[in-house]
Formats: sequence, structure tokens, C-alpha cells
Amino acid sequence: MKVSSENLSSFIREVMLKKGMSEEHAIICAQVLTMADLRGVDSHGVARLSGYLRLIEKGRINPKPTFTFEERKKTMLRLNADRSIGLVSAHIAMQKSIELTDIYGSSWVGIYNSNHFGIAAAHAMMALKHDFIGFSMSNASPLVVPSGGKERMLGTNPICVAVPAENDDSFVLDMATSAAANGKLEIAKRNNKEIPEGWAIDDYGQNTKDPNALKNGGSLLPLGSDKDHGYHKGYGLGSWVDIFSGVLTGASFGPWAPPFVSFLEPSNDMPGEGLGHFVGCWDIDGFSPKGTAKKQVSIWLERFRNSTPINSQKVKAAGDLEKATTDERVKNGIPLNPEVSKDIKEIASLLNIKDPF
Amino acid sequence: MKVSSENLSSFIREVMLKKGMSEEHAIICAQVLTMADLRGVDSHGVARLSGYLRLIEKGRINPKPTFTFEERKKTMLRLNADRSIGLVSAHIAMQKSIELTDIYGSSWVGIYNSNHFGIAAAHAMMALKHDFIGFSMSNASPLVVPSGGKERMLGTNPICVAVPAENDDSFVLDMATSAAANGKLEIAKRNNKEIPEGWAIDDYGQNTKDPNALKNGGSLLPLGSDKDHGYHKGYGLGSWVDIFSGVLTGASFGPWAPPFVSFLEPSNDMPGEGLGHFVGCWDIDGFSPKGTAKKQVSIWLERFRNSTPINSQKVKAAGDLEKATTDERVKNGIPLNPEVSKDIKEIASLLNIKDPF
Repeated sequence: MKVSSENLSSFIREVMLKKGMSEEHAIICAQVLTMADLRGVDSHGVARLSGYLRLIEKGRINPKPTFTFEERKKTMLRLNADRSIGLVSAHIAMQKSIELTDIYGSSWVGIYNSNHFGIAAAHAMMALKHDFIGFSMSNASPLVVPSGGKERMLGTNPICVAVPAENDDSFVLDMATSAAANGKLEIAKRNNKEIPEGWAIDDYGQNTKDPNALKNGGSLLPLGSDKDHGYHKGYGLGSWVDIFSGVLTGASFGPWAPPFVSFLEPSNDMPGEGLGHFVGCWDIDGFSPKGTAKKQVSIWLERFRNSTPINSQKVKAAGDLEKATTDERVKNGIPLNPEVSKDIKEIASLLNIKDPF
Repeated sequence: MKVSSENLSSFIREVMLKKGMSEEHAIICAQVLTMADLRGVDSHGVARLSGYLRLIEKGRINPKPTFTFEERKKTMLRLNADRSIGLVSAHIAMQKSIELTDIYGSSWVGIYNSNHFGIAAAHAMMALKHDFIGFSMSNASPLVVPSGGKERMLGTNPICVAVPAENDDSFVLDMATSAAANGKLEIAKRNNKEIPEGWAIDDYGQNTKDPNALKNGGSLLPLGSDKDHGYHKGYGLGSWVDIFSGVLTGASFGPWAPPFVSFLEPSNDMPGEGLGHFVGCWDIDGFSPKGTAKKQVSIWLERFRNSTPINSQKVKAAGDLEKATTDERVKNGIPLNPEVSKDIKEIASLLNIKDPF
């Protein structure tokens, strides 16, 4: 079942309005979730909508937040998101960083007391049209073990860096710091397939090929998968994200990061408030003159895309696949899996609004 | 054969003075290389000294550089390193960033026309005693393929983030963005052992266990090692480093990054000058009040170090191993392999200075 991006976006907007969000915030949610579906990150688009709604019902997401910025340094702000959905708080924080970067050349916002922020790229890429480089990260519910550990300590904690090039081209790295995303296990489960070694361990800390590993008390492995292949690096990257997003901002962190699913309660002894994010920009003109810098990035992109491939498939730069998927889906619509379509129809009927199909 | 860190450091200082460096620059070189040996990064300490000397002889490293800072934005500078050794240029750039961070809360220096900068941690960790978070990256000679490619396009391009905690504790992530460092292949070769799958490919793009893979025209794989285990992420991280250090600063980049070894000539059509680095700081007080922030980092470190391990070995935080190695080597001396010891003696005799043994 396919849906047009316009219909999907206006459906999400209507849902969020019904849930009490302001017009501005509802539109941001619609944009961010639709962008995920357009880019092919199906796990982070409208598929999450029912999850967000349950968190609103539980009172964990506040649909009418009051944002309070604290100017800690000229180029560093802290944002109390007042339990906002992260889709909105990270967007608002990035807007502020864009204003400050205009003045100082770079600037940063640490966000606490927030919730899940969707795809990291949605926030970092806001910088591109200003010829700034965007940066975003967020911590998340614990699913990933440290290298050498078997306790869930980190989320899949994404990092995004978005760099503008000439003619609206760009380099957009948006990556989870785990070896595989949770969504990949879901797909394997749906297809009744084993997962590759190196994605997950069971609750004894042993490698497993069981796609139900997480449901059965197991955990995800950090990028690198094992000692020989440098999983201390994936663990280190995930730690960095947790420290910048959670520890330093005043959000909760590590094993205490609040769970995304509404049926699990956040722990009672959280060391901070809610989830945290970290966003910011560098002005590309701060490196070398804008014209030169963007041209060099284009030369880089061109050279890498034309480097010698192993087989007939061309080498890609970070973000190329998502760009191609967006082009295709803008034209032909966004494919939704049956469960997500069903969810959408239920939400539409419950809230008495038109479904997007 | 072991050497004391004091003797090693003063030996390196003397060597660099003989090669025409200023007292200030010779001391920086001595500090940075000795620090690598103390931290157990044996591939990046005094083992590199003869390589640097050959580059000075070739005229590729200028021992008497004139540094020119260009203030492009309030918080973003560009440094023409005048073919300096990177050990020094990155250090000087970091000093500048520390001054600016005092004023603005964060600041950045992009460096071009430079050379190999040693361990990334030496520069990023300068921030710690100011209660700043240090950041450093550098591009390097091409050895690593993109995901899906078989052409050497990237260096092992390291990223370092150093975060202060209470009582001089810290989190220090210093990682190459390849699956394994070149040095690990060297060790396997010396021990006549195969390397694990996922470290290298041969010149046909096939996985190989041959520790001589690089010598025979093969390449290193990015962190993640293969498609199933997310090597597009390691490729993306290495690309980020190349873009920030090389592409944007005006240094050379990608397959054109100048080789470390003096017997290979840099390509004739380099798109920029020399190697590049990117360094900077965030004031930890810019996130939340210094006292609170450092305390939260200590809570994080404590919690992760005490998380459930798979076996009897405790879980570590990034940098813990290097800290323990430093403590041990400060006390008992730095072990050097026979080839490195021989190198040192030859240098001492050639320059007519006392060896450090």
C-alpha cells in the first residue's frame, strides 16, 4: 500500500493538532516523520506515530511544551524541552543554532527533558540551505552493550553530519552507532530468517543468530561487532553520543534513558530529565571561502562516486541512497507495510479524521 | 629493551633541535611522541621518528614553519601550517582554540599545508585541564576503501573526543575509522600469523587473511568490515574526517592525500596543500554548570565501569586502557621493539647525541 508524501504529511499534521499541538509544532512533526519515510528510514517515520501518541496519552510527551533556552556561553545554549516530542525540540534548537552561527560561525544547543527526536538527519540537514554544516545526535532507550559487557547500557545513539556542496548536492552521514538497527532484526523476524552473527548477543552474552534476541532478553552489539573488528570503537561512539546528549545536558542517560515504548515505565532513580539531544552548526565559510569550500566538497563527492567499485554497483557517498529513495518516493509514493497502514487507519478512525490513502 | 619516558622525551627534543626546530617546537614533538608511547600506541610514538626525519630531509616537512592564522569567523580560524610537522601545528592550533573557547564557549581551527600529527589524543586532551572538551581529527595517506569499492581512497582517519570528569578522570575516545590499524597487520606479519577476515581486501577486492595484503596492493576495510555489519558507517566516519580535515581546510584529500613514507612522491595534481587537521573545544560549562557536568560524567564512568561484564574482565570506558598503560610505563619504562631501538641508536650516532638507553 502506497501513500503520497503530501497526504501523509497533512495526515500527521491533523493528528498532532487533534492531540493538542500548536499548528507550528504539528507541521514540524509532519515534516520530520514524512522526511524519514521519504528517505527510506521506514522505522523512524509514520511507523512511530502510534508510539508517540501512546506517550502523549501517558503524559510522558507534553504536546504543549514551553521551551526555555538558557544562554550558558555565547555559542552554547541549553534547552529545557518541557517533555516535548524530540521531533519539535531538536528542530527549535537547530533554528536557534542557525541564528547564532550567523553571528559567531558556530554554535551548539544541548537539550534535556525531551523525547525521541526521529531521524537525526531531519535536524542536521536544516543547516544546509544556510550553507552551514549541520550536526545532531541523540541518546535513546538502552539496547546496546558496551564492548566486553552483556548489560544494555546504550541506545542505538545516532550521529549525523550534513555538509553542503554545489548545486544542492550534499554529504549526509546519518548513522546509528550499533552494528545493526533494531528495525533490521524486525525485518528478519517477519521473514522468519536468522540474523548474521555480530548483530546481537543473548542474555548470557553469547553471540546469537536469533532474530528474537532482543525480545528474549538479549542485546544489540556496537558497530564493529566483536573485539577483532574493533567494537570498542562503536561502543566509544555510542558513549560520546550519550555523554553529549544526556550526561552533559542534564537529561537521563545510559541504562536509565527512558524507554520509547509506553508500556515500560522510566526508572525511578533517573540521574536526569527525559532524553537528551545535541545539535549545532559550523559555517562552511568558517573553513574557507564559501565558494571554494562547496566546490571542494563537490570535487570530493565526484571523485568518491567514481572510484573503482568491487562489482558493477557504483560507490556511493553518505546520503546518496537516501537522496535517490526520496526522489523515487516523491514521484511514486511511500510504500507502507500492512501493520503500519492498519495503525494509520485506526488512528484516523479514532480521531475522526480522513486517512491518507 | 625499555627506556624511561624522561630519557625518551629529552632524546626526541635533542633530535629535533639538531634538525633545526625551535626549542618550543622540539619540546612539543617530544611531548606528543612520548605520550603516544606511554599510552601504548606504539605505532605512533618514537617508532615514527625516523620517518619524520626522512620527510625533513626530503624538504616535505619544514622544521622552521611560520604559522599564519586567518580569522574567518569569530569562532572559526584557518591555519596555514607552512609544511610544519603536524605534531606541532595541531598543538599550536589547539592552544589558539583554547584561548577562543574562553571567550565564546566553543571554537575551531582547520589546518592545511601540514603533515602527520601523531596521536589525535595528544591534541584533544590539551583541553582537559581547562575543563573544556577537546576534539581532533586528521586525514592521512590513503589505505582504506569505501564500502563497495576496491580503490584506496581514505586514510585511517582518526577522531578524538576528550571529556573531563572529576578528580582528573576523563573519557577519551581516540579511534581510527578503519576496522583495524595498519600496525595490527605489521604485528601479524612479524608473528607470521594470518589476520582475521574483515580487516583487509586484496587488489581484486576479495577478503584476505594475508598480513602482507597492503604490501601486495590490497587495502584496509572501514570499521564495520562488510555490508552486513555496517561498513558504510566506518566509511562515512572516515569521509567526515577527510572532508573536515582536508576538503574544507584547503589541504589535499582522499586518494591525493600525501603519503607518510618519504620514498613515495605526493601526486602532481593535488587538489590542496599537504595534510589537514581539524581541532577545537567546547567549554563543559556551556552544557551545564561545570561542577554538575563533571560530576555527571563521573557518575557515567562509574556506572559503565561497573556494568555487567561477559567474563571476569571489567568493562572499560574509552581511554581507560591507555590511562592504565601510561601509569605502568611511567613507573616501569617504555618497552621498545628491537627495530625501533636500532633506529634510535642509528639516529643518535648519526646526529652525535646520546641515545636514551
